[in-house]
Amino acid sequence: MGTANLNAGIVGLGRMGRRHADNLARRIPGVALVAACSPEGDERAYARDVLGVARVHARYEDLLADKGVDAVFIVTPNTIHPEQIIAAMRAGKHVFCEKPLALDVESCLAVEAEAAKHANLKVMIGYTRRFDASYQDARRKIDEGLIGTPFLVRSETTDMNDPSGFFVRFAPKSGGIFVDMGVHDVDVARWMLGSPKPQRVFATGTIAVHKGLAECGDVDNGVAICEFEGGKTACFYNSRTMAHGHETQSEVIGTAGRLVVGRKGRLTQVEIADAHGIRTETTPTFYERFAEAFVRELAHFADCVRHDRAPALTLHDATEATRIGIALRTSLVERRVVEL
Amino acid sequence: MGTANLNAGIVGLGRMGRRHADNLARRIPGVALVAACSPEGDERAYARDVLGVARVHARYEDLLADKGVDAVFIVTPNTIHPEQIIAAMRAGKHVFCEKPLALDVESCLAVEAEAAKHANLKVMIGYTRRFDASYQDARRKIDEGLIGTPFLVRSETTDMNDPSGFFVRFAPKSGGIFVDMGVHDVDVARWMLGSPKPQRVFATGTIAVHKGLAECGDVDNGVAICEFEGGKTACFYNSRTMAHGHETQSEVIGTAGRLVVGRKGRLTQVEIADAHGIRTETTPTFYERFAEAFVRELAHFADCVRHDRAPALTLHDATEATRIGIALRTSLVERRVVEL
Amino acid sequence: MGTANLNAGIVGLGRMGRRHADNLARRIPGVALVAACSPEGDERAYARDVLGVARVHARYEDLLADKGVDAVFIVTPNTIHPEQIIAAMRAGKHVFCEKPLALDVESCLAVEAEAAKHANLKVMIGYTRRFDASYQDARRKIDEGLIGTPFLVRSETTDMNDPSGFFVRFAPKSGGIFVDMGVHDVDVARWMLGSPKPQRVFATGTIAVHKGLAECGDVDNGVAICEFEGGKTACFYNSRTMAHGHETQSEVIGTAGRLVVGRKGRLTQVEIADAHGIRTETTPTFYERFAEAFVRELAHFADCVRHDRAPALTLHDATEATRIGIALRTSLVERRVVEL
Amino acid sequence: MGTANLNAGIVGLGRMGRRHADNLARRIPGVALVAACSPEGDERAYARDVLGVARVHARYEDLLADKGVDAVFIVTPNTIHPEQIIAAMRAGKHVFCEKPLALDVESCLAVEAEAAKHANLKVMIGYTRRFDASYQDARRKIDEGLIGTPFLVRSETTDMNDPSGFFVRFAPKSGGIFVDMGVHDVDVARWMLGSPKPQRVFATGTIAVHKGLAECGDVDNGVAICEFEGGKTACFYNSRTMAHGHETQSEVIGTAGRLVVGRKGRLTQVEIADAHGIRTETTPTFYERFAEAFVRELAHFADCVRHDRAPALTLHDATEATRIGIALRTSLVERRVVEL
Repeated sequence: MGTANLNAGIVGLGRMGRRHADNLARRIPGVALVAACSPEGDERAYARDVLGVARVHARYEDLLADKGVDAVFIVTPNTIHPEQIIAAMRAGKHVFCEKPLALDVESCLAVEAEAAKHANLKVMIGYTRRFDASYQDARRKIDEGLIGTPFLVRSETTDMNDPSGFFVRFAPKSGGIFVDMGVHDVDVARWMLGSPKPQRVFATGTIAVHKGLAECGDVDNGVAICEFEGGKTACFYNSRTMAHGHETQSEVIGTAGRLVVGRKGRLTQVEIADAHGIRTETTPTFYERFAEAFVRELAHFADCVRHDRAPALTLHDATEATRIGIALRTSLVERRVVEL
Repeated sequence: MGTANLNAGIVGLGRMGRRHADNLARRIPGVALVAACSPEGDERAYARDVLGVARVHARYEDLLADKGVDAVFIVTPNTIHPEQIIAAMRAGKHVFCEKPLALDVESCLAVEAEAAKHANLKVMIGYTRRFDASYQDARRKIDEGLIGTPFLVRSETTDMNDPSGFFVRFAPKSGGIFVDMGVHDVDVARWMLGSPKPQRVFATGTIAVHKGLAECGDVDNGVAICEFEGGKTACFYNSRTMAHGHETQSEVIGTAGRLVVGRKGRLTQVEIADAHGIRTETTPTFYERFAEAFVRELAHFADCVRHDRAPALTLHDATEATRIGIALRTSLVERRVVEL
Repeated sequence: MGTANLNAGIVGLGRMGRRHADNLARRIPGVALVAACSPEGDERAYARDVLGVARVHARYEDLLADKGVDAVFIVTPNTIHPEQIIAAMRAGKHVFCEKPLALDVESCLAVEAEAAKHANLKVMIGYTRRFDASYQDARRKIDEGLIGTPFLVRSETTDMNDPSGFFVRFAPKSGGIFVDMGVHDVDVARWMLGSPKPQRVFATGTIAVHKGLAECGDVDNGVAICEFEGGKTACFYNSRTMAHGHETQSEVIGTAGRLVVGRKGRLTQVEIADAHGIRTETTPTFYERFAEAFVRELAHFADCVRHDRAPALTLHDATEATRIGIALRTSLVERRVVEL
Repeated sequence: MGTANLNAGIVGLGRMGRRHADNLARRIPGVALVAACSPEGDERAYARDVLGVARVHARYEDLLADKGVDAVFIVTPNTIHPEQIIAAMRAGKHVFCEKPLALDVESCLAVEAEAAKHANLKVMIGYTRRFDASYQDARRKIDEGLIGTPFLVRSETTDMNDPSGFFVRFAPKSGGIFVDMGVHDVDVARWMLGSPKPQRVFATGTIAVHKGLAECGDVDNGVAICEFEGGKTACFYNSRTMAHGHETQSEVIGTAGRLVVGRKGRLTQVEIADAHGIRTETTPTFYERFAEAFVRELAHFADCVRHDRAPALTLHDATEATRIGIALRTSLVERRVVEL
C-alpha cells in the first residue's frame, strides 16, 4: 500500500462497538486495532481475548494518553459523544464517532468550533448510508444527470417490532424517534438534494404498539415533512413496529426520473414459493442491510487519515442532521410547524 | 339475470365521458345506454353514430325529461356536478357522477341534503379505486385481520409529465393538485382506515417543471400529512411530472403487517432485459391502470339500482374527500396547519 | 358495430364450457348466444335458466340442424373434437373449438383437409395465450426488433397441486402432460420463433407426487427440449405439483435482448409484508391468469367471422402443436430422441 | 483466531489470479500471502509491487520448494490444473485450485488417487457458488424441509455478450460451453439434489452470434437435461450472448415448494424510473455477482487447513461436475443421448 498503517483505538465495545472493533481488527486495509477502552470488564475481555488487542484501558484518559494510538473510534452512549470527541482532538487524535454527533445543536457547534482549531486532524461522524454502495450509486447517477434536478426525497427507516420493548426503556435518552432514527433519513435527503438550507418542518406520529413511549413524548411511528430552500422537499417515515423486518428505503425524485434505493430489503437472493405465495425474507435489522457499508465507512475514514484527504461527510453535515432532527421532534411534541 | 334492465342516459362525452359511454353501451350487464346529452355536436355524433344511442339531446333538461331514462351518468366539468346531480334527483333519476362531488363543501352538503329527500334514488360518486380488484383485496385482507389494526396509510398518485402543459391551463378550474388528484388518495386512506374523523392537515409542494402553475397558487408536486382521530394518520404524494408513466400506489400499515397496492404500475406482464437493464413498462395514464375498475364501478352502481342496494360509497364519503382535499389546498396556499 | 350479429351455439357446458358460455352470453360484442347443447340435463338447465339461452338441445345433430346458429363453439372432451368440428363444417357452421384440435396427427390432418373444402367458414382452435395482452405485447416487441432475432424460447406451465389427484383419473384420456399442458408452451414457442419446422425432441420427467400416473406412462413433472430448423430451440417445463399456485411463464431470448412474460403469476397487485416476509399471492389456476384472454379470444374469432378475416391462429398451427406434443410424449415414454 | 497463520503461495496472476491474490493479501483472516509465482514478468511485478508479496518466483518448482508456503493457490490455465495439483501435494502443500479440476475424467481420477495418499493435506476446487450466502441459504432451507423433497433443479449461467469475441479464441481450450460454464450449474444441481448418481444426459445448442465457434464444435447458447437416479432431474441453460449483463439463476423445485436463487441479477439496490420504464441494472460479469463468495471460499479453505477440517466440497464433487459436463459436450457434438 505504500502508506504507513493507522493505529486505531476504540472506546465502547457494546453491540455496535464490537461490530466496529471486529471490522477494525480484521477488515480495514491499513488499520491495526492496537488499543481498546471500556469501563466494562467483559468488553475489555472481548477486546483482549477475542480480538487480541494489545493495550486495553478502563479509563478514556488512558486511551487518549496512549502514544501508539493515531485515531480514536467512539462507540459510546450518544450523550457523551461531544465531550469525548473534543477530548480526543485535544489529545491530538483523529476521531471517528458513531452518529449522532450530539443530541443538541449547541454541542454540535462546540465540536465544530474545536475541530476548527485542529486542521490537521480528521473528524468524521458515522452516517453509514453515505458509504453504502447502492446509495453511492444513486448519488453518482444524480451527479451524472440521470434524473435531472432532484427536488424531492422520500426516505424511511423502519425497524422490526421488538416485543420486548427494549427501546422503550432506552427512549428517554435516545432523543426520540426522529433524532435517533430519522437523522439517517435527514442526512440522506440533504446528501441527495445537494445540502440545501432547511426552512420549515412539520412532524407528527402515533403510538401504534408501545404505549410506554407516551411518558417521554415519543412515538413508535413518525411521519414528517421538511421544506428546504428553493422548493426542495423531503418526507420521512420512521417506524419501530414492522412485522416483517428492517427496511431502509429512499426515493429521490427529479425532473427527469426517479431513483429508489433499498426497496424490499431482501436478506438474501433467495425467493421462496410455497403455501404463503411467492416471497422473500427481509433483513431482520439494519445491520444485515448495512454490514458492508460499516466496513466501507471505516475504510474511507482510515484512507482519509492515511492520505490526508477530507472525509466525504463533514462535521457540519452531522450538525445539520441533528438540527433538523431536533426540529422534527419539537414539531411532534409541540404540535406545530417549526421554522428553521 | 331475472331483473329488469337499467336504462342509462349519459351527459358529457369528452375524454372520460366516452370511456364511460363505451362501457355503458357494451360492458355493463343489465344496462342499456338509451340516451346521451352534450352541447357539443361531435360528442352527440359519437353517441349516435359510434355507439348507436337512440335518443341524443343537446340540452340537459331534455335528458332529464326523457321518461325512458332510469339513471343519469354525469361526466361533465367539476364545477357543475352539484347542480346537475340535484336536478337529476328532482327529475326522479338515479345518479352516477364522476368524482369529485363538488369543489366546495357547501355544495357537497347541499347535494347530501337533497339526496335525503329522495330515499328511493341511488346516488354515487365515482371514486374508482373502491372498485379496483386489488384495492378491494387489500380491504378484504384488512377486514380479515391480516395486518392487525391499520393505523397509517401512505398513498400517492403520480402522473406522467405532459410537456404540453395541458393541465396548467386547466389548473384554475381543477381545484388544485390536492382537490383534483389528491382526493383519490384521501378516499383510499379513509376507506382503509375505517373512515375516522380528520383532525389536522399539513401540506406543501413545489413547482418542479410547470412554472405557469404559480399564477393560480398550484404546484406540480405536493406532499401532505393528515391526522385523524385515534392516532390514525395518512401521508399523500401527488405529482404531475413523472418521467416514466402513471403510478397509483397505496400502502396500509397495521400493527401486524403492511399491504402495498399497485407498486410498480406495470403496463403488461412483459419484462424486458436489454442494454437498459431489466425493466418493465409503466401504465402511461391512470386509465390503463384502472380500465377494469371503471367497468366494475358502473356495474356496481347498476346492480345497486336494479337490486335496490346501497352503494359501497356514500355521498358523505365524497363530501369528506372534498373537505379534506380543500383543507390540504388551504394548508398549501396559506402555509399553515389547518384544523378540521 | 354496423355488422350483423353472430349467433352462437355452444356444445359442452362443463367447467370450461360454462366459462365460454358466460362470456358468449355477456361479454363478446356482436355475439348472441342463441343455442346450447349438452347430453347432461344440469348443463342444459344452466344454459336455459342461468344464461337465458333460447334453444337448448340434448343432441349435437340438433344443434347443427339449428338454422339460427352461425357458429358452433365446441368445449367437449378432447377425444371427440375432430369429428364434431368436421360435422359442424359440413353443416355450414363456423367453428371455434377448445384446444387441442385432436390427440393424434391423423385426425388433425383430416380436419385440415375438410376445412380446405369450406373456404367460406372460419375454424379456430382456442390457444388462449395468443390472445393474452402480455403475450401479444411480447410478440409486437419482437416484430419491432426489440430483441433482435429470437432464437430460444423457454416456456413453462405449472399448476398448483391438487391433492385430490383428480387429474390422475383423467390422465388416460388427457394425452399425457405434454399433450395436455405442454401444447400451450409448444404453441407459444412456435409463435414467438416465427413458426420454424421442428426437427428433434427430447423429453423426460418424473413422478414427484402422484404415483398413480405410472400406470398410464404419464408424469407429474416433465421437461423437454425441441430443436427447430435454423438452430431455433425451445425448452419446456410442465408441472402439476406446485405448492403456491398456477404460473405460466415464457421467456424469449434474442440476439439483442430477452423478454419474459408472466413471471411471478400475481393474483392481484397487493403485496403483503408480514411474518412470512414480503410476498404476493399467486393465481390459483390458469383461469385467473387468462380470464381476459378467454374473452379476447372469443371476440377475435367473432370479429373474424363477422368481418370475413382470417383468424390469427391457423388449423395448421394447432396441428403442429399436437404433432410436437405427441413427439414429446413418445420421447418420454420410449426414452429416446424423436426425429420429426 | 488462536491458531497459527496460513502462509499462502499463489500461482497464476492473470485476471482471476489477481482477484484471488488480492483477497489472500487483504481479506482472508488468518492468511498471509507470502509467495507468488508466474512465468509472466508483469504478473510477478504486480505481486511484488502492488501486493507487497515477499517471495516472487518465475518457476512453479521454486514455489513448491518454498518451505515457507503451507498452501498453494492455483489459478492457471485449466489444462495444467491436474499436474500442478499433484505436484503440490507431492511437495506437501495444501491445494486450492480454481475450477475445473480437469478437462477429462481420467485426470480427475488421477488427482483423486494422489490425494488419497496425502490424508493430511486439504485439497479443494473452487466451485464458488457453494460459498455464496444465498446459495447456502437455499441449501439450508432445503435441509430444514422447507420445500419437501427436492426433485428438479433448473440452473442457468448467462454472460453478457462480449462483441470482441475474446472467448471464441479461447474456445478450443475451454472445453466448450458446458465444461467451461455449465459445470457450475451441474455442481449446483448435484449439491441441491443431494449428490444423486447421474444416468443420462441430452444437450443441444445453437450459435446465435459468434459464428467462429463452429470450428471447434462449440455453441454460444446451450441447453441440456440431466437425469439422475430416483427420478431427480436437472435442466441447464448457458449463454454467452446476453444483452443486459451476467445472471446466475438457479431454481430448486421440491414436493412442497420452490426456491429461486439469484433471479434478476441486480448490480445494486437502486431502481431507476425514467423514459425506459422501471428498471434495474444487472451485474456486468460473474465477478460482481460473486465477489463476496470468492472471499468466503478462500476463508473456508483456509479455516479447513488451519483447523484440520474437511472442505465442504470434495474432489469427487469436482470429478462428477467434470464428468457430467463432458457428457453434455458429447451429447451436443454427437447429437445423441449419452448414458453415464
